Amino acid sequence: MYVLAVSDHIMIAHSFTGEIFGPAQALHGATYGVEVEFRRAELDRDGLVCDIGLALKTLREVLGELNYRNLDELPELRGKNTTTEFVAGEIFRRMQVRIATGAVGPGTAEALASMRVVLRESPVAWASFEGALR
Amino acid sequence: MYVLAVSDHIMIAHSFTGEIFGPAQALHGATYGVEVEFRRAELDRDGLVCDIGLALKTLREVLGELNYRNLDELPELRGKNTTTEFVAGEIFRRMQVRIATGAVGPGTAEALASMRVVLRESPVAWASFEGALR
Amino acid sequence: MYVLAVSDHIMIAHSFTGEIFGPAQALHGATYGVEVEFRRAELDRDGLVCDIGLALKTLREVLGELNYRNLDELPELRGKNTTTEFVAGEIFRRMQVRIATGAVGPGTAEALASMRVVLRESPVAWASFEGALR
Amino acid sequence: MYVLAVSDHIMIAHSFTGEIFGPAQALHGATYGVEVEFRRAELDRDGLVCDIGLALKTLREVLGELNYRNLDELPELRGKNTTTEFVAGEIFRRMQVRIATGAVGPGTAEALASMRVVLRESPVAWASFEGALR
Amino acid sequence: MYVLAVSDHIMIAHSFTGEIFGPAQALHGATYGVEVEFRRAELDRDGLVCDIGLALKTLREVLGELNYRNLDELPELRGKNTTTEFVAGEIFRRMQVRIATGAVGPGTAEALASMRVVLRESPVAWASFEGALR
Amino acid sequence: MYVLAVSDHIMIAHSFTGEIFGPAQALHGATYGVEVEFRRAELDRDGLVCDIGLALKTLREVLGELNYRNLDELPELRGKNTTTEFVAGEIFRRMQVRIATGAVGPGTAEALASMRVVLRESPVAWASFEGALR
Repeated sequence: MYVLAVSDHIMIAHSFTGEIFGPAQALHGATYGVEVEFRRAELDRDGLVCDIGLALKTLREVLGELNYRNLDELPELRGKNTTTEFVAGEIFRRMQVRIATGAVGPGTAEALASMRVVLRESPVAWASFEGALR
Repeated sequence: MYVLAVSDHIMIAHSFTGEIFGPAQALHGATYGVEVEFRRAELDRDGLVCDIGLALKTLREVLGELNYRNLDELPELRGKNTTTEFVAGEIFRRMQVRIATGAVGPGTAEALASMRVVLRESPVAWASFEGALR
Repeated sequence: MYVLAVSDHIMIAHSFTGEIFGPAQALHGATYGVEVEFRRAELDRDGLVCDIGLALKTLREVLGELNYRNLDELPELRGKNTTTEFVAGEIFRRMQVRIATGAVGPGTAEALASMRVVLRESPVAWASFEGALR
Repeated sequence: MYVLAVSDHIMIAHSFTGEIFGPAQALHGATYGVEVEFRRAELDRDGLVCDIGLALKTLREVLGELNYRNLDELPELRGKNTTTEFVAGEIFRRMQVRIATGAVGPGTAEALASMRVVLRESPVAWASFEGALR
Repeated sequence: MYVLAVSDHIMIAHSFTGEIFGPAQALHGATYGVEVEFRRAELDRDGLVCDIGLALKTLREVLGELNYRNLDELPELRGKNTTTEFVAGEIFRRMQVRIATGAVGPGTAEALASMRVVLRESPVAWASFEGALR
Repeated sequence: MYVLAVSDHIMIAHSFTGEIFGPAQALHGATYGVEVEFRRAELDRDGLVCDIGLALKTLREVLGELNYRNLDELPELRGKNTTTEFVAGEIFRRMQVRIATGAVGPGTAEALASMRVVLRESPVAWASFEGALR
């Protein structure tokens, strides 16, 4: 299995609901280092998992919807605790929609087996979501 | 599949038995950066894989049994070569016992599918142990 | 010249005032990896720049005043753009006050020549403030 | 499952063929940080996945065939786009041949379940190839 | 003294002239992680060392002159061994020219005291050039 | 000012004497990532600060005197607390002696202005020693 991974980052504000979150119930924020891994069994005829330029561009577009925002105010995330693991899943779903419509290259969506999104939250914590693309 | 990972570190002394270890047969030591990954299929109702505070606390307790110690002198490790891969497995087993008794939250033990323990030993080597929790 | 450095991190929310900040004028946040370097010409009789346990404890106390907070709401920072470089300076000043009253050990304040505070803001940016302690 | 991983690096020149590569069609180069992960279900009687010294030596030999070279001029790579993912696969195959003939220790080849080769290409991109060894 | 640092990277090919370079006399290449540190005594009225967006843009422009190139073929570098330390100096000089003409903001050139350019060449080597800007 | 830096690592055991060290009074150990920075005002005629191959070789020789050892048993370190900052100074002094006798190249000792030795001890602590070479 081949993997190609690209990374970028976002800086967001948010707060959590629930006593389990302790001091993180207050409005605070995070820099998330974001890595997306694309997996497929065989390389394409150019020797690629996918076009790395398109992969970086697609990731930047998805992250652009969240970057420099207070996640508490995004209508589509209302009522959700935007934990690192949840945001990893959310970025996965937004990437998946774009990939399905050809964002990382014609024919690539069909060839990719799975994808993993990793969010680096701090020197001592990270989270990820991984799922099949087919 | 969602993953939440936390990290900490320990500083230990030990020696190895067997010619295969060359100069590492002498008493020496290591800083191990330790990462524990918790995996589950769905997030809980708070949007979490598990309580990150409890995860860090449980890891610190397990590591406290090894930190600033000469592993050659720990009765429960007698006769073992405490290689990086072995210690990864040992930390897995000690975490597993605590998780089973609710250390990372009530109900979480049942929800976690698997766990991975990674030990960073040097800039050029690391080891891990991964296993199912159910 | 000897240096001892310790690190920790904080997760904060804030916004900036001024067109120069572009999208960062909106409320957003950051994880700051924070490193503090202590410098002195000669080691003390224990072979130390300073007590590393006290250094970590003092840093944690200073960071505790900022961690999980919206910096826009802290009275003492009102009217300031809490840029990464400004926050580095602010942490320097708060560390300096505590060091002067013996927080990192009796006699250490007099022996330390200078200090540097580094804030890692993202994979592509960091800032620092450095100054004399005597 | 236990994993032992070792790392090293190479510095190579190459160019790519195909419009999809844009400016990377020109002769350029890369530093690849190379990590090789060895996986097996149980440790050997010494408590090892494999002899870490032999693992590092074998990796160095394989990388020696590529290091400080223009990959465009290597006869065995003619007609290939030596993308990061392709080179990960190539290093996997070269390691696999040597492992099969005992390079990482007698009896180890039979015990290893799988291997993964990761290439760190830049701060924002990496690739890997993973496959079974039996 | 305040510092603001930004980073980016380039991928280049080159060769060296002289027996001292051993195998690196052959055409090979490198990924250089490039960090530029800007230093000044006091922050501006916005709380900044300089406009971080302009700093990243200026660095990208300078690196664009070298990225995906064979440095052996650049007329302005003819007859030079483009060692990591030399390239650090070269990037310093190209940044300095742009800063002097206002690239990182009006009035900033006069306020900056010095600059340092760091190039990360491999996991075991880096080089830098530092100089005054006034 | 130009800098060239190289890195390697060691794994040692040791203990500390004095109540200030708390649990680190017990025999434990550390992996030290070791970086040595060489500084000079002008590059030599090859475009170098010094021969990077000789720099790595000299560092490896110096580290070979400490690697896989219990520092408590080295006669030349008797009575010393081998703190991270002390060991940084010790490596500096051992490098300095070798540099003075031509270990990093003929004529280089005279050209180098200063040197810095950095030891990475854990994810949250590092130390260094810096001094003039002339």
